[in-house]
Amino acid sequence: MLHPMHDDLTIRPATDDDWSAIFPFYARIVAEGRTYAFPLEQTSDEARPWWMEPGPGRTVVAVVGGRVVGSAKMGPNRPGRGAHIATASFMVDPACGVRGVGRALGEEMITWARSEGYAGIQFNAVVETNTRAVHLWRSLGFEVIGTVPGAFDHAEHGPVGLHVMFLRL
Amino acid sequence: MLHPMHDDLTIRPATDDDWSAIFPFYARIVAEGRTYAFPLEQTSDEARPWWMEPGPGRTVVAVVGGRVVGSAKMGPNRPGRGAHIATASFMVDPACGVRGVGRALGEEMITWARSEGYAGIQFNAVVETNTRAVHLWRSLGFEVIGTVPGAFDHAEHGPVGLHVMFLRL
Repeated sequence: MLHPMHDDLTIRPATDDDWSAIFPFYARIVAEGRTYAFPLEQTSDEARPWWMEPGPGRTVVAVVGGRVVGSAKMGPNRPGRGAHIATASFMVDPACGVRGVGRALGEEMITWARSEGYAGIQFNAVVETNTRAVHLWRSLGFEVIGTVPGAFDHAEHGPVGLHVMFLRL
Repeated sequence: MLHPMHDDLTIRPATDDDWSAIFPFYARIVAEGRTYAFPLEQTSDEARPWWMEPGPGRTVVAVVGGRVVGSAKMGPNRPGRGAHIATASFMVDPACGVRGVGRALGEEMITWARSEGYAGIQFNAVVETNTRAVHLWRSLGFEVIGTVPGAFDHAEHGPVGLHVMFLRL
């Protein structure tokens, strides 16, 4: 049973010390093979630079009752003449049991991108069968720009599409 | 005046020694600001890893009369569960004066991707005002999956769209 949204859900910048709390659910989510085309079977040291984002980007954590239950990384989607568009990735601990963590991370990321002066946010690879994520991003104003057919090898469904999603700021 | 397509246009894998011939037109093309969202004002050493692709990808050069007139880099578009889709980038020396170099590089890349067993090829960021490139890729069977509005800050036109293009193999 999911708990109701917690009053004490807070989002703050991640510190180096947070990685040890993030990596277990990062590894589990990648291994489940339903949402992320990240390298498989990474060690903690290998995975760290894939998630802990240097400036001008940043990584944040969602914390409930002192426990890290989710994380997001964000930054420019491209360098140079593409650096005015932001991108981000999100992970919520599947064992978290708290509602609203993904939405809170998404809202925080949009606020950050707007305050940093980005002109838009592009998600490059939202798995089309990840309907919770697709619905969440739509509810926050993102639209599907297009879908690359079969670009994600889903652990259960085989090749499924990857949505490119976009929000103009 | 453009020369006719040269009989002696050959495409071969790039060696480390080719970088010194590639970098001048790489730098010029990036600086012109019409086609690539790569980091600006890179030194040769900074730019090298952005173009010289390690395995399982590769970089090739187009050679005419012993001179490197173009180059392409290619490899998996994503790691893990996205590694069955290839991607590539192409540059032709603006001073080259030889026709058909881009097309020859594109055809070679498609042949390579097919022989390596990729299920498709995705171009993530084709500048919509780069009509020569868009037409070339369409003529080779690519379609526009979607266009991210204003995602490229064109040196002359300001914000223009970036096409996501795809070819199923």
